[in-house]
Amino acid sequence: MSSNDVESIGNVVAQTAHFDEPLLLRSGREIAQYDIVYETYGTLNDDASNALLICHALSGHHHAAGFHEGDAKPGWWNECIGPGKAIDTNTYFVVSLNNLGGCHGSTGPTSINPETGKVYGPDFPIMAVRDWVKSQYRLMQRLNIPHWAAVVGGSLGGMQVIRWSIDYPQLVKKAVVIASAPKLTAQNIGFNEVARQAISSDPEFHDGHYLEKDTYPKQGLILARMLGHITYLSDDAMREKFGRELKTGKLSFDFDANFQVESYLRYQGEQFSSRFDANSYLLMTKALDYFDPTCDHDGDLVKCLSQATAKFLVVSFSTDWRFPPSRSEEIVQALLAARKSVSYLEVDAPQGHDAFLFPIDDYVNCLTAFLKTDTKEQNHA
Amino acid sequence: MSSNDVESIGNVVAQTAHFDEPLLLRSGREIAQYDIVYETYGTLNDDASNALLICHALSGHHHAAGFHEGDAKPGWWNECIGPGKAIDTNTYFVVSLNNLGGCHGSTGPTSINPETGKVYGPDFPIMAVRDWVKSQYRLMQRLNIPHWAAVVGGSLGGMQVIRWSIDYPQLVKKAVVIASAPKLTAQNIGFNEVARQAISSDPEFHDGHYLEKDTYPKQGLILARMLGHITYLSDDAMREKFGRELKTGKLSFDFDANFQVESYLRYQGEQFSSRFDANSYLLMTKALDYFDPTCDHDGDLVKCLSQATAKFLVVSFSTDWRFPPSRSEEIVQALLAARKSVSYLEVDAPQGHDAFLFPIDDYVNCLTAFLKTDTKEQNHA
Repeated sequence: MSSNDVESIGNVVAQTAHFDEPLLLRSGREIAQYDIVYETYGTLNDDASNALLICHALSGHHHAAGFHEGDAKPGWWNECIGPGKAIDTNTYFVVSLNNLGGCHGSTGPTSINPETGKVYGPDFPIMAVRDWVKSQYRLMQRLNIPHWAAVVGGSLGGMQVIRWSIDYPQLVKKAVVIASAPKLTAQNIGFNEVARQAISSDPEFHDGHYLEKDTYPKQGLILARMLGHITYLSDDAMREKFGRELKTGKLSFDFDANFQVESYLRYQGEQFSSRFDANSYLLMTKALDYFDPTCDHDGDLVKCLSQATAKFLVVSFSTDWRFPPSRSEEIVQALLAARKSVSYLEVDAPQGHDAFLFPIDDYVNCLTAFLKTDTKEQNHA
Repeated sequence: MSSNDVESIGNVVAQTAHFDEPLLLRSGREIAQYDIVYETYGTLNDDASNALLICHALSGHHHAAGFHEGDAKPGWWNECIGPGKAIDTNTYFVVSLNNLGGCHGSTGPTSINPETGKVYGPDFPIMAVRDWVKSQYRLMQRLNIPHWAAVVGGSLGGMQVIRWSIDYPQLVKKAVVIASAPKLTAQNIGFNEVARQAISSDPEFHDGHYLEKDTYPKQGLILARMLGHITYLSDDAMREKFGRELKTGKLSFDFDANFQVESYLRYQGEQFSSRFDANSYLLMTKALDYFDPTCDHDGDLVKCLSQATAKFLVVSFSTDWRFPPSRSEEIVQALLAARKSVSYLEVDAPQGHDAFLFPIDDYVNCLTAFLKTDTKEQNHA
């Protein structure tokens, strides 16, 4: 694929919105001022009724589609966003941002804290999903968008969609919650905690002040990503992809990478460690762990979702064991009990949790139909 | 439970057998001389026909039952081994050993290499399951046991049982393979590799020469165990045990252990790190990864098992996702195709992979019946 790809939106340029009004956070702390980096694809229509927000997952960012000039690889969800694609930029004005606390341009741990003149590092406050949604709301206002025709997200992005639908119920027409969960299980939290311990026990972590020492916890990030990566793939996908293939065709009886899967995971970890900030990773995993929209509703998901007015599409993937279909079904059941409009699709897909990034036919068709139908209804209204 | 427990075999004392004959290993290397530490429970009968071998799993050892003088806790499988228990010491003479390469008394990385006068450390050769079985065979000869009435093991122990049944087919009357697999999947290997990388990237690892520097890779071991522990428990078991319980009842918005599950995993990791040797852990996980009894049989498990003459019992646990029932069923199907005698039980149990250590009724009854029936048949023969 290249920038000449006819189905691509071509080259895109990220923009930055600066906000001076302090953002009060769930933790009680606040961010006095901040930048949000975002991209837009497609054109906002005359009555500004076709805006669609993309919420990114753990290691995602604003560059969801199209190409940055000179890049060989497109944005992370290019397969699904573009002219004629599931999220059709001929119809929608797509907004994709980097969440606060991230490390791709929006204010986060690697940014300079204006109060101290030094990088935030570990002093950057832990964000909750609702804090991100609040900051996304401000971006929406800045862009003169009166409401979202749709808010769409996978995994941690799906949690932001749920939060949008209950915190700003009138502003979300359609909510697409993909490969997500109403809250993490103890097992999910356990995996995140191992990843965090891997990072924070790396001697190069320096209690999070690694940048001041011109270093970073590379090994910790590698371990965190290796572990994460296993949980994003299905057992079947790994069997299919690697099986028990040996790099050199024979057992080496040493501790070098011997099986292909070892080599692959090390490579993935290595790549990730050079592009992601450790403090951001810690923050993002905490937001995942903390997410529980029922916390203000006596733990009752039905009560919590009864405020929503959006039409929902919930999608899960058969081999996703990090956020299995049963977790999506919890959301669906609660929406039904709250008498909301909801469509649900469990996609038969071998890829595991990562499936949400792939243009799988059933999934793409369903997403396309859901986004098209609703748009038509609006047009007729 | 105490040493006065009527169903306990009471106090036990470990013994050591020294071997001078070199052990040629799968890797091509050899161990010139070695010790094997073992325990026995019950009495060898006159015709030495009632010996039963216990093969231990990844972090196991010879102390499977009874009490070491002064200890409050019994051996790791005390629930299933003792007078009147599933592995009945009134019937069987039970032999339980610490495998070579371990760190509980048998020769391993923490032992002195007689050739250098220094600890082996990382120079201890990587063992294959077949090497352990060969060393167990020598112990059997030393104890004047002509054959095993049964060989029993869970997880990595089950792999040793499979190996016994094909390498010494005439010497195994009954083979009990519990919560095991014919070989690891890429996902299994992936988890092991993350654990190994956690250990070997710990700066205190010193390429395995940590003991010479009077230190050890504590953090790496903690991470390895935290990760392992998650995979030994079922998702349900973790939900039941911890849910989303918070240590202090509220979100802390920092990186201290906030959820109970975080605190529990850290504790388990910490405990383990003080009792297990890092080089041993590396070795044991490699033996798991490498195990593939079909490697000498064109990858054909049926062909491979066709040599066996033992009666098999294969047991799996419904919520075990590290070695799920489907992996046990592969063994059962191959045994059936090879026209072997095999009983199979999938136990409905919430505990995950760890279930094999618990005295679950269906499991205990099945094990008891399988071991009893066969003994009677022998007595009648």
